[in-house]
Order: sequence, then structure tokens, then C-alpha cells
Amino acid sequence: MKFHYPNGKMYIPKEKEANSQGHREKKWSYSKRGMTLEDDLNDTNEYYLQRGIAVIHKKPTPVQIVQVDYPKRSAAVIKEAYFKQASTTDYNGVYKGKYIDFEAKETQNASSFPLKNFHEHQINHMKTVVDQGGICFVILRFTVHDQIYLLSADHLLMFWNRQAEGGRKSITREEIEYHGYSIPLGFQPRIDYIKLIDNLFQLS
Amino acid sequence: MKFHYPNGKMYIPKEKEANSQGHREKKWSYSKRGMTLEDDLNDTNEYYLQRGIAVIHKKPTPVQIVQVDYPKRSAAVIKEAYFKQASTTDYNGVYKGKYIDFEAKETQNASSFPLKNFHEHQINHMKTVVDQGGICFVILRFTVHDQIYLLSADHLLMFWNRQAEGGRKSITREEIEYHGYSIPLGFQPRIDYIKLIDNLFQLS
Repeated sequence: MKFHYPNGKMYIPKEKEANSQGHREKKWSYSKRGMTLEDDLNDTNEYYLQRGIAVIHKKPTPVQIVQVDYPKRSAAVIKEAYFKQASTTDYNGVYKGKYIDFEAKETQNASSFPLKNFHEHQINHMKTVVDQGGICFVILRFTVHDQIYLLSADHLLMFWNRQAEGGRKSITREEIEYHGYSIPLGFQPRIDYIKLIDNLFQLS
Repeated sequence: MKFHYPNGKMYIPKEKEANSQGHREKKWSYSKRGMTLEDDLNDTNEYYLQRGIAVIHKKPTPVQIVQVDYPKRSAAVIKEAYFKQASTTDYNGVYKGKYIDFEAKETQNASSFPLKNFHEHQINHMKTVVDQGGICFVILRFTVHDQIYLLSADHLLMFWNRQAEGGRKSITREEIEYHGYSIPLGFQPRIDYIKLIDNLFQLS
């Protein structure tokens, strides 16, 4: 029999409540949640948008459309299309009038971040953004440690150039800790990267 | 018989040269060319990018992907997908560190620009950008006159609000001429909108 409180709310046994609480607790750890870095960044950006903190959106996945059907009385259906390589980074927008641009990547690697996660055209895009005075960075996540870092595009380019000159094909975790900034996982927002921008890029 | 000049270039009769020249002339007029406003803006943005003037890209068309096939030894094929409504404007990027955001629309209408060309969510996006100090505007083209205007988001919002209050559902051409700025069609770049930004938004 279901029991209802006088306020109309249903009675939930303490045990179940604890479970649902436990479930929420679990949301704090990546490994136990279904959410990806992308989900968390989208949530974060939505949080910023709702509160007027910043306007940052993820760009749609670029698709080369080959064939479209236009059935009568219903929506156009794309019947053949292919994924295209993005010519820019995934996220951009505005914060205090300034242009913000970043890419987010994760690795299963424990000790270093492989540079093959970035494509040449993305690197080139970041260079053009930096040259144009935009605020550009990458958000890197080590999945095994569940740790997230913000690394400025300047530093990423430094490591990219080291690779181009025959150096190592990755950035060590120590290097990221030294040159980058750790972003603690939060509840709301999940990944509060905007907080770091003021100090990092000397905005008032 | 084909005749080659000593420099290896092929001889082209004057007549043909004139034709090809004539063809290029035609490119100056919209009505006689196959190019769309989008093509011209993409060319313009490419011009800005190559010369380090600004970094502005068109966002990919948002698509809701439903079914993807992964054939062996060849690229993934999207077999079913639908067009999604964009939640932002189509173009954004950075100019002198500042965030630039705009939408481009054309009308066949001769005397006014119908506001139905804009969706509520695009208008809302523009508001958030303006509030965040971004540079936001629309590029409007009257196809019959082949005339292009830049109108700031502030002004567009003013006309949008007038409509919301029961006023007319379009902006008259006179209003656009008064509040907006005419962009003369050029050869390179085609639509030199960045030129107007410095004055309009008081950038140094």
C-alpha cells in the first residue's frame, strides 16, 4: 500500500532515499557516471548561459550531406551523409566581450597526453585565434585520475612545436600540471573553467 | 592547331579572352551569378583569414543523426538524419580580440525585410551576446536591388520588439537605410563588413 503524507508527497522509505542520495553522490565521480566530458561542458555552458556569465556553445558536428529526401507532409530526411573533419575547435563564444575558443579532449593514458588528439587544422585554427587576440585554450581530461586541466593554446603550441622538431609526441602530466591549471570537478557548474579565465588572461 | 607562346602559355584568341573577362564582370552582379550571399560571406571570411584580418567561420548546419552505418574498410555513412533548428546565429569569430557574431539573411522583397526571416531562439541568442559585450549584427540582402546592409543587433531587437508589441512584421528599407550601413559589393573581399566594425563599435 502506498502511503502519502498530508502534503500529498509520497512516503519514501529511508532506505530508498539513501539510495537516491547515493546515486547523486555517484554523479561526482566520472568513472561511475555515464556522462562524458562533452556532457559536462554542455551542462557548464548552459549554466553560464542561464546566469548571464558567458555565452559559449559547442559547434554542431560538421556533416557533408549527399542525399536528402523530401517526403510529402513530413520533414526532410537526410539519406546519405558523411562526417567531415572540423576546421576549427569545438567550442567558442563570448565572455565579457572577449572571444573565447577551446577544444576539449580526454585520454585513457595515465602519465601523458598524446598530441595525436589534436589535428593540424585545429592547431592552425588556434594559432589564428591567438594572433587575433582571442582567448584560446584546451581542456584536457585524464580519465583514469578523473582530473581536468586547462592549458593555454600558447603552451599547447609550444609542445606541438617540440613534436614537430622531433621531440616527444605527448605532453607529460607533470608538464600539464606545471603549465596548466587544474579544474576541480564541481556540482554546478561541473567544470568551472570561466573562473580561471579572469586571472589567466588578465581580465578585470 | 594549338599555338603556344615561347613562355609555354597557350595562345587564346582575343574573342575568348573578352568572353572570360566578360564572365568575370558578370561576377559583380548577383542576379547573373550563381553565388549566394553565403558563398560570398564564406569567400570574404576566407580572405580575412588568409590575411590575418579576422577569424570568422560559418557554423556547420546542425543535424540530428539517427542512424549510422560502419561499413568495413570505408568511411562511416550517415543513413538517417534530420535538420535541426540552429540555437545560435550562423557566423561567429574573433576580430582584434573581440567576439563577433552575426546572421545573414536575404529577401526577395523589394521594399521591406520580413522579420519572419529570424527565429525567436536566434533573437534570444543575439540578446545574450549583446549583454555579454559581444559585437552582434545582421547582414541583410535585398536580392532585387542587389543591396547589402549591416544592421546592429540592437536595432534588429528594436524592430523585433515593435513587432512583439503588435507593430509591423517587417523592417522597411528606409528604416534599414537609416539605422543600418550599406556595404558596397566588392571584388576582394566581396562583402567587406569588418571595415564597418571599427567605426560602428568604436574599436581603435
